[in-house]
Amino acid sequence: MEQRAREEALRRLASAEGHLAGIKKMIEADQYCVDVLRQINAVERALQKVDSIILRGHLNSCVPERISGPERDQVATELAELYELARR
Amino acid sequence: MEQRAREEALRRLASAEGHLAGIKKMIEADQYCVDVLRQINAVERALQKVDSIILRGHLNSCVPERISGPERDQVATELAELYELARR
Amino acid sequence: MEQRAREEALRRLASAEGHLAGIKKMIEADQYCVDVLRQINAVERALQKVDSIILRGHLNSCVPERISGPERDQVATELAELYELARR
Amino acid sequence: MEQRAREEALRRLASAEGHLAGIKKMIEADQYCVDVLRQINAVERALQKVDSIILRGHLNSCVPERISGPERDQVATELAELYELARR
Repeated sequence: MEQRAREEALRRLASAEGHLAGIKKMIEADQYCVDVLRQINAVERALQKVDSIILRGHLNSCVPERISGPERDQVATELAELYELARR
Repeated sequence: MEQRAREEALRRLASAEGHLAGIKKMIEADQYCVDVLRQINAVERALQKVDSIILRGHLNSCVPERISGPERDQVATELAELYELARR
Repeated sequence: MEQRAREEALRRLASAEGHLAGIKKMIEADQYCVDVLRQINAVERALQKVDSIILRGHLNSCVPERISGPERDQVATELAELYELARR
Repeated sequence: MEQRAREEALRRLASAEGHLAGIKKMIEADQYCVDVLRQINAVERALQKVDSIILRGHLNSCVPERISGPERDQVATELAELYELARR
């Protein structure tokens, strides 16, 4: 992964960790469940953003380097798997 | 697209069309909304299966042929776009 | 379902059927797979819009009428099921 | 939220936090991006499981208590919102 993408991903993951700690406090304080669900959803969106950053790096570097060589089938299978994961 | 994948995709799309016609009849007959929602959902799943078939063909043929050449950036951008679409 | 929501849902389902017929022609004409995937995705979005219309009717009428009576558990279970379906 | 559901949600959120800490280490160690994506995806699945637990509590308690009273429209609107969030 490029340095900039790595830092961006790490920064966002640290932020998601902090967000989860806050959500645990919301639940301990018995806050309204719909508000808790909205916050968990925000973390899910944040993680999807990290996915996008890492995938973009994968598509820009690993995939072009490897998909024309002997690993072609593996790279294609992995991409198909990532697509299925994204959809769930 | 390979002949077999194309036929499979066409067969599944025709089936989805028939399914939608049936759902319209359910709505006209004022059937229970949860049952209607389940059926629409089944069509959504069927279309996702068609997506998977077509994507797999794309990953096995177009992508390896084009991602190492001058279209590299376009192919990567399209794959990132498909990933975002899959997630919504 | 209310008359207006029913008509809206039927109109959108008919439009989705037409869209699918067009996608079959795209595949038969061997058009670029990414363009086909974008169009299938548009139909998936259209079906989700129909879901939203029908669900909203369900939440506004069936649910309030039934969730306080003897069918309470069934209504809650169905809503949880719809939520899981929405996520896939 | 019921005591048991609250504990289950807290336990799973703590586990997700630990999982995120591990993913940060994977990125710092420059591990293969597809493996990182698989792990982030596993956390997303874990958070969806927490969603399901909290939603189920909401459907079993808050919704039946409030949807037949003056808050009816608000409860229905919130449920529709959660459905849209689930889909994204």
